Amino acid sequence: MKKSAILGVTLTTVLLSAQGIAADLPDPKSVRTDHLQLMQGFPPAADKQITQAGFMRPYPNPRWSFHHARELFPSRRVARGHEAVSVLPQAEGMEQQIADLTFTGPDGEQMSFGQYLDSTYVDGVLIMQHGKVLFERYQAGVPEDEPHILWSVTKSFVGLLATQLIEEGELDPAALVTGYLPELENSGWRGATVQQVLDMTADIDYSEVYADRNSDVVKYSLAAGMGPVPHDYPGARDLYSYLPTIAAGVDEHGQSFRYRTTHTEVLGWILRRVTGMSTAALIEQRLWRKLGTEEDAYMLLDSKGAEWAGAGLNVTLRDLARFAEMVRLGGEFNGQQIISAAAIEKIREGGDRDKFKAAGRDFQPGYSYRNQWWISHNPDGAFEALGVHGQMIHINPTVGMVMVRLSSHPIASSAQTMPLSIPALAALADLLRGREE
Amino acid sequence: MKKSAILGVTLTTVLLSAQGIAADLPDPKSVRTDHLQLMQGFPPAADKQITQAGFMRPYPNPRWSFHHARELFPSRRVARGHEAVSVLPQAEGMEQQIADLTFTGPDGEQMSFGQYLDSTYVDGVLIMQHGKVLFERYQAGVPEDEPHILWSVTKSFVGLLATQLIEEGELDPAALVTGYLPELENSGWRGATVQQVLDMTADIDYSEVYADRNSDVVKYSLAAGMGPVPHDYPGARDLYSYLPTIAAGVDEHGQSFRYRTTHTEVLGWILRRVTGMSTAALIEQRLWRKLGTEEDAYMLLDSKGAEWAGAGLNVTLRDLARFAEMVRLGGEFNGQQIISAAAIEKIREGGDRDKFKAAGRDFQPGYSYRNQWWISHNPDGAFEALGVHGQMIHINPTVGMVMVRLSSHPIASSAQTMPLSIPALAALADLLRGREE
Repeated sequence: MKKSAILGVTLTTVLLSAQGIAADLPDPKSVRTDHLQLMQGFPPAADKQITQAGFMRPYPNPRWSFHHARELFPSRRVARGHEAVSVLPQAEGMEQQIADLTFTGPDGEQMSFGQYLDSTYVDGVLIMQHGKVLFERYQAGVPEDEPHILWSVTKSFVGLLATQLIEEGELDPAALVTGYLPELENSGWRGATVQQVLDMTADIDYSEVYADRNSDVVKYSLAAGMGPVPHDYPGARDLYSYLPTIAAGVDEHGQSFRYRTTHTEVLGWILRRVTGMSTAALIEQRLWRKLGTEEDAYMLLDSKGAEWAGAGLNVTLRDLARFAEMVRLGGEFNGQQIISAAAIEKIREGGDRDKFKAAGRDFQPGYSYRNQWWISHNPDGAFEALGVHGQMIHINPTVGMVMVRLSSHPIASSAQTMPLSIPALAALADLLRGREE
Repeated sequence: MKKSAILGVTLTTVLLSAQGIAADLPDPKSVRTDHLQLMQGFPPAADKQITQAGFMRPYPNPRWSFHHARELFPSRRVARGHEAVSVLPQAEGMEQQIADLTFTGPDGEQMSFGQYLDSTYVDGVLIMQHGKVLFERYQAGVPEDEPHILWSVTKSFVGLLATQLIEEGELDPAALVTGYLPELENSGWRGATVQQVLDMTADIDYSEVYADRNSDVVKYSLAAGMGPVPHDYPGARDLYSYLPTIAAGVDEHGQSFRYRTTHTEVLGWILRRVTGMSTAALIEQRLWRKLGTEEDAYMLLDSKGAEWAGAGLNVTLRDLARFAEMVRLGGEFNGQQIISAAAIEKIREGGDRDKFKAAGRDFQPGYSYRNQWWISHNPDGAFEALGVHGQMIHINPTVGMVMVRLSSHPIASSAQTMPLSIPALAALADLLRGREE
């Protein structure tokens, strides 16, 4: 079977989205879940039926599937346990002010914050300052208590836990990846350090361009089980089989940042080896049972039970806010030091901005990448977790502000949302700057 | 492709178990989950790896997979909500007495209750009397807070809710199935009433013999997605497509009881049509949010999002006990009338014992089947929910006793456990008879 044919078959099954179709984006108001009636009826009408193959497309399927991923895929629970829910205190009087806040968009247009949320297909957004909720909105008919896929925001959970394990001396950032994972001795990770994987500066022969149907991300998606695998597909059908097949890149490790989800899959594998726990169990033990979360979370699994460490965590909006607020507070939340302040400080320091430029992510000017987090290096020291289709944690330590958003943007690229999010969040910071605790 | 070849391929993927292998049953002590190390390691050793295809076999895979089914299959949450957990008060001093209780087995052998639990591969068992827990044991390394598949105990949840809807006038037991489901107009359910489906006396051309590889249950299993479907399998790949293909039986409807899981799938479909809710949502709204459950439950789904209404509910042992206790109490539990007393009374009345005999279930002498429950008609008026591989709810109203058990018996037949359960439960009832509340 020719490679092109294989990839052709998989086109409808994985997370490819063409950046070039931006002109055809649907009116966000036309793709509300409650209006669409996706998966309603027994059986649903043929054009409302979503199966595993339709997880990502056609749009608007994600409007339903991004908060029902466990109904399409195997999943592992991340239990909240039975501790009390931590209260998120409410501030008053800011909801309308924030919705009406205006800012200048990338093309010089005036836009309100509410328009920004609509136009980026937000499913839910929550804004806190000084630990109080200023704004909480669920849009498009998305329920507030149903976990939503975080996509690459997952990476920042894994990166934070790796940083914590480094602080505890359980993981050595200077050690070779292959010291933990001999399985990768003949792969592209040979010679790379754990820190280079954390910062995605290890160089591997792997392209991640969602708009390119020949991109390796298709092979990754099939190995992870993000859609049905053609019966005669000759490639790897699970992550542990796939990762060792990725060859060396052309450059030396450590030269430049290139965003590769497979680095996080390797990182997740290392953490399992080090802790003896699944990624879900580690998140559960270290975070979910401590944050006073409201709902069990879950992680999506490949066909052999390995989590999608780079993409597969599903949580509710308020629980995501609890996690983000804990990070803002230097790891102390719900009456406990959950993550060490030093681990979070290490992330906030940021990575190498020159190495970051190599990735060509012009929509994140001045950024760096450190331990699976995006560091803005703006005057407020803001830093972020980002997932395709508009998932986001934004933490502004100076203003004491956190924004978390869940989303189902039709296009799988942060290039769609970041040019709006950056000025919107700057305006929001200015609005809130100087407000007393 | 020849039928035999198709079924041959599927043999390893579905729930077939040969009754004839009873002589080869493993020592229960040798198949403890914690000793077996199933799915431990990253990746697990090849002989410890369980995939969807290994859900049922080889044994001892079920020891792991029966409480990790969501890690192999798509699932839908049955949320507990955020109400307080209902307390299950503890009685004292009966644990050892029950374990040591002896009774006479079917071959005249003396056996202790503890031996009965061991020899029937119990994963967890809980016994209550007068609302207090006398005995609670988890065996074989099975964790107490992880939902466990109930198999056909699921049917009794669906049957109870159907009975409740009848009491409320929402469902007419005398109406034709096809009045609710025109899709079945040309199927074996043509002419059958809802009550005949509830009692499994509608006659369809469908055999359910787990030990027979040519049994229709294989087609059902593939339609439900209980294992990977061969790519060239020509049959139905989801339940809504499969059910209309089942033809009429040879007898008139209503003549005799024959146990058919597909009747419950039809019943589940009817309830969705009537209520506009998925089976999971109905169980959640009517039961799970009211019982003071400890954990979210979940239901397994076919490839198009329909629950396995006859087999796919997963709950923890204590939550199953709450459900059973509510039924024992005539529907009143946790300070609410959750199900009407009349609905439960209707079930307890039982079905037609003569019609029951046609099924040849000699291991349930004197029983009848009513609204998806097994009625013993013994002097205590005991009635039961049963699932293959040893799942059970046993309610003895006279003694005020409830026993729930979760299990992973190697053989998919109640004929394996009932000949022991009946005398064991009779001895237990005698032990507890006359104990004050």
